[in-house]
Amino acid sequence: MQTSQSWYNILPDLDFTLPPDRPPETDSGSGSLDPQVPLSLIRQEMSRERWIPIPEEIQRRYRQWRPTPLVRATGFEKALGTQARIYYKYEGANLSGSHKLNTAIAQAYYYKAAGAKRLAVATGAGQWGTAVAAACQMFGLECHVYMVRTSLENKPYRKTMMELLGATVVASPSDETEVGRRFAAEGQHGGTLSIALAEAMESTHDPGTRFCAGSGETYALLHNTVMGLEAGEQMSEMDDRPDIVIAGLGAGSNFGGLAFPFLRDSLPSGGGVRCVSVEPAACPKLTRGRYAYDYTDSSEKNPMQKMYTLGSRFAPPLMHAGGLRYHATAKIISALYDRGLIEAVAYQQREIFASATLFGSCEGIVPAPESAHSVHGAVVEAARADRDGTRPAILLSLSGHGLFDMAAYQAYLAGEMDSDIEVPDELIERSLAQLPRQPDLAVT
Amino acid sequence: MQTSQSWYNILPDLDFTLPPDRPPETDSGSGSLDPQVPLSLIRQEMSRERWIPIPEEIQRRYRQWRPTPLVRATGFEKALGTQARIYYKYEGANLSGSHKLNTAIAQAYYYKAAGAKRLAVATGAGQWGTAVAAACQMFGLECHVYMVRTSLENKPYRKTMMELLGATVVASPSDETEVGRRFAAEGQHGGTLSIALAEAMESTHDPGTRFCAGSGETYALLHNTVMGLEAGEQMSEMDDRPDIVIAGLGAGSNFGGLAFPFLRDSLPSGGGVRCVSVEPAACPKLTRGRYAYDYTDSSEKNPMQKMYTLGSRFAPPLMHAGGLRYHATAKIISALYDRGLIEAVAYQQREIFASATLFGSCEGIVPAPESAHSVHGAVVEAARADRDGTRPAILLSLSGHGLFDMAAYQAYLAGEMDSDIEVPDELIERSLAQLPRQPDLAVT
Repeated sequence: MQTSQSWYNILPDLDFTLPPDRPPETDSGSGSLDPQVPLSLIRQEMSRERWIPIPEEIQRRYRQWRPTPLVRATGFEKALGTQARIYYKYEGANLSGSHKLNTAIAQAYYYKAAGAKRLAVATGAGQWGTAVAAACQMFGLECHVYMVRTSLENKPYRKTMMELLGATVVASPSDETEVGRRFAAEGQHGGTLSIALAEAMESTHDPGTRFCAGSGETYALLHNTVMGLEAGEQMSEMDDRPDIVIAGLGAGSNFGGLAFPFLRDSLPSGGGVRCVSVEPAACPKLTRGRYAYDYTDSSEKNPMQKMYTLGSRFAPPLMHAGGLRYHATAKIISALYDRGLIEAVAYQQREIFASATLFGSCEGIVPAPESAHSVHGAVVEAARADRDGTRPAILLSLSGHGLFDMAAYQAYLAGEMDSDIEVPDELIERSLAQLPRQPDLAVT
Repeated sequence: MQTSQSWYNILPDLDFTLPPDRPPETDSGSGSLDPQVPLSLIRQEMSRERWIPIPEEIQRRYRQWRPTPLVRATGFEKALGTQARIYYKYEGANLSGSHKLNTAIAQAYYYKAAGAKRLAVATGAGQWGTAVAAACQMFGLECHVYMVRTSLENKPYRKTMMELLGATVVASPSDETEVGRRFAAEGQHGGTLSIALAEAMESTHDPGTRFCAGSGETYALLHNTVMGLEAGEQMSEMDDRPDIVIAGLGAGSNFGGLAFPFLRDSLPSGGGVRCVSVEPAACPKLTRGRYAYDYTDSSEKNPMQKMYTLGSRFAPPLMHAGGLRYHATAKIISALYDRGLIEAVAYQQREIFASATLFGSCEGIVPAPESAHSVHGAVVEAARADRDGTRPAILLSLSGHGLFDMAAYQAYLAGEMDSDIEVPDELIERSLAQLPRQPDLAVT
């Protein structure tokens, strides 16, 4: 099979429009997308076309590693003793080690076309930074990465990897930016993704530098639909189709990229394939957050988006799936969840690692901790199906490899992983109490 | 294409026979292969059949990741500005991260069939240990790994990986064996592969435990010929064939596995495709060693083989390509080199990392330090071809990924890698002076 020649835009298949972004409280601006974002990306964000052609140059890059494998996990099924058919779409076999290269290449392409010389980027576990570094090198752009300090200290080799790709990497909070210095002074030395994001945005004061948003923007989800489109074709070739699609949920590009092409058949009213997002119990934005206007980063200077959020100042407990430690999730995923078109579950780290360890030994791929969420989600669904006597086809997103996460597996094997990471209600309530004043809902 | 259904046995295409193994000086035994080795493997070692059918169960395992990719390195060619066509065969995208799974699976299969319950194994950089651990898990065998202490300390995650696969791992020299305690007492705390091998062999005193030899045995080379056979077919599909085949040289399974199927056309007298082995300047067995009877490990209790060797007590300087720190190389490769049928070169670590870093950024795969040897070999050959105005097709073995070797790349990028690792002549002479008494050559 070939990799897809178009991205799938879910917006025209919805019977509602997304609540518009809002200007920050401190600002008198328009609240539209930051003018730094290339017009081409803004047009994609707003497009009502169902199919967005992928530029030939991007297709050529995709073909370096796409189509990615779609594999029936027969060894894993056997170990679980399940009657369910479990498939995984594996995105880890590219330079960046995860699905994030799908949109990083597209974003670098459009930023380059718009005249950027240098991209500033924030990264948690390092996959997004690695992906942008790789994409920048392809297109001759400089790359500067703000990496959440705790993640950098846990995974120093991620930094080496980005440096191999020609990027410069600093720990966030850094002393390069005002916002970094402010949070460091407040004692937030370990960092969060929203602080790193604020730092990257602030750094765009340098001429020629643009901020490369990450994976929560609608266009990032769009670019990742190559995963779901390919997976659909591959499952057809195997004479099957998924009853349940499962993916870990951070900012949303992994879940959206795999699920949207399958969700399409159930739109606008739902009822088709079940799309289940899995979030960490330590950062439960869909299952315990609020659907409200909030900032996407800690600077509170950028437009607000209506999202499921735990509050932009929420500092999730430390855990190994750094890529899922984001306080909110994409506005499009939030809106779908709000309307009951997708599902959400949250699991504890240790049960997730138990499933991932079993999967790794059966299937020969060590899942990234982020990807391990969907593996555990599949284990739960398979057990439920066996209880109910159904035999569903379950498709899970194995979004990246865990070869840089051996410290986490080491801790798990040594029995040194905390059994449960509890986030007390009052912590979430306190954070949500700091949400910005909500605009008059009648206006949205 | 399909992966191969037979292994290629080079022996019937040679116009000479290999010098027979010899009993150890301390022994009055027969000098034949250790009776612990299953008869099926001994038969393969001795076979005069050109094609050895691969058992269906092994083929089924191979199909989990084979055929492996054969890729034209166009980005790398462009960066080098060469007119040569450079192809790489990539063996790193399996659980073990290297080509070594090709023979580990076969060996585990035959040992299991012969009644083994537990395999003991020695590993340098960890790839062989990981491969055997993976293979043991597939076939329900226990696995106990002796890992060279310096490698284990440099790459603790390799241990985690093996433990994830259910193996137990100890640093060698260990206090589990007599030979380990003896070398530790002599101050050899960092370990060498030949000490680890001696420990693994000693541990077979436990009932049910067998020693799984590694990658220098003739049958290990045989099993790895799936690489070269596939590569030949894949290049045919791309309407090309190699003029030069290049692979890093440790004990020999990588080089032999890729090169032998191509060497076949030049046998028995040579003159066809050039097969170039690349060894580290720090462990130059072919380029500076002696073709003589020597022990394959430090115990000096096992049969001697006629090999190019630096002496079984030679302790190579520390370097990052731990998998190539073996004092000798396979007897079959030694014999081919002795007759001028293959070539050998040795390069310094830093120039090798320079080529590997460039390759990684162009092709999106970080080579293992061992695999980086062939990458640099290709760079040298391409430059020579450009000077000479020839346009050869160069096929290199990218035998494994370097994602567990980021410390080495970190050192390279930071300019902290020694410029040259010199092995003084007198060190080699002193080691060779300790070679066992050579049997009367007229008898061989």
